[in-house]
Amino acid sequence: MKELEERIRKEGIVRPGEVLMVNNFLNHQIDVGLMDRIGAEFYRLFKDTPIDKILTVEASGIAVACMAARYFGKPVVFAKKSMTSNLGNTVYITQIKSYTHGNFTNIILDKRFLNRGERILILDDFLAHGNAVIGLRELIMQAGAELAGIGICVEKGFQQAGDRMRAEGIHLESLAIVESMNGETGEITFRDQD
Amino acid sequence: MKELEERIRKEGIVRPGEVLMVNNFLNHQIDVGLMDRIGAEFYRLFKDTPIDKILTVEASGIAVACMAARYFGKPVVFAKKSMTSNLGNTVYITQIKSYTHGNFTNIILDKRFLNRGERILILDDFLAHGNAVIGLRELIMQAGAELAGIGICVEKGFQQAGDRMRAEGIHLESLAIVESMNGETGEITFRDQD
Repeated sequence: MKELEERIRKEGIVRPGEVLMVNNFLNHQIDVGLMDRIGAEFYRLFKDTPIDKILTVEASGIAVACMAARYFGKPVVFAKKSMTSNLGNTVYITQIKSYTHGNFTNIILDKRFLNRGERILILDDFLAHGNAVIGLRELIMQAGAELAGIGICVEKGFQQAGDRMRAEGIHLESLAIVESMNGETGEITFRDQD
Repeated sequence: MKELEERIRKEGIVRPGEVLMVNNFLNHQIDVGLMDRIGAEFYRLFKDTPIDKILTVEASGIAVACMAARYFGKPVVFAKKSMTSNLGNTVYITQIKSYTHGNFTNIILDKRFLNRGERILILDDFLAHGNAVIGLRELIMQAGAELAGIGICVEKGFQQAGDRMRAEGIHLESLAIVESMNGETGEITFRDQD
C-alpha cells in the first residue's frame, strides 16, 4: 500500500534495537482517515475469503480491526492482556512474549466469542517476531476455529516470521514490508509487492 | 440512544459488585455496526463544539474513539497503560485506579501528541467511578490543553461521577445512563434523557 509506505518513510523513526516508531499515525496517535483506507485495503485483499469474525489483540490492533470490520460487516473480538471482571467464567488463555515490552504476557479470550468451525481473520498493526500472531493462532486452535487469513499493516520482513507463515501456506497479507532499516541514516527499504 | 439501551437491556449481564457486562457487543466482542452508529451519535452531540483531537485510554476506548473520529475528521490519541519502546522520550504520566482490575495503573502519553491550547474531546466506553476520565483530564492539564467535552457509551448513574462532572460545568454526554441494576432479577433501569 503505497500511501502507508510513503507515510512510514516520511514519519517513521528508526531506533536502536530494530525498533520502528510509527506512533504519530498508527499506534499511539491514529490518523483515522489513513486507518479507514487501511481497512478498505484489507477488505480488497480478503473479500473473496469467507470469514465469520476478525480477531486481534489489545491495544493497537483494535483500531485496525474495527476500521476494517466496517467493510467486512463482521464482528471484532480482541484478546485481552489481563483478567478483568468483564470476562466470562471460562476463557481461552495462552502466553506470548512481547517484543516491544520485553516480557511475557497472557492473552485471554472469553470462550463465548470464539467457536468451533468459525473462520477467523487475524488483523494487527505490526508483525515482527510473530509472537502476537502465534498466540492468537493458539487461541483459534484451542477453540477449534479455523484461521482464514492474517492481515498486517507493517511487517518487518527481515525478522522472517511472515515468510515462515507464508511457507506454511497461510494467506498472509502485509500492507508494507520493511526489508531493511538503517538506524544511522534512518533509511527504510520496502519489499516490492507489485 | 435507544438502540444502545435496548441492547444493554437484552444482552447486558448484571454481576455481583455492581459489574455490568456488555462484553458481547461493546468491549471484548464488538458489534462494529453498532459502534459506527455510536460514533455518529457522538458526532451529532458534539458537532458544534470545536475540537482538535479525540483522547481515550487503551484498550476498549480505542474502538469508540476511532469509530467516532471518522465523523469528526480528527485524529485519535490513546493513553497507554505501560511504557513501551514505541513511546517517545518525554511523556505525560499519571496514576489511575482501575475499577474492573482493582489495582492502580499508570496511564502514559507521548508529549508530542497533546499540545498547549488544543481542544480535546474525551471518549470512552464506560464511566463508573470516573477514574479513567479523571486521569485523562490530568494528562490534558499537564499538557496545557483544554477539555472540550466528554462522551461516554455507558454511564453508571448511581455511582455519581458523571453528575459531579456535570455540576462542574463539563459538557458530558452519555448515550445510556444506568440508574439502577438488580443483581437478582437482572433488571436494568435507565435515566430518561429525552
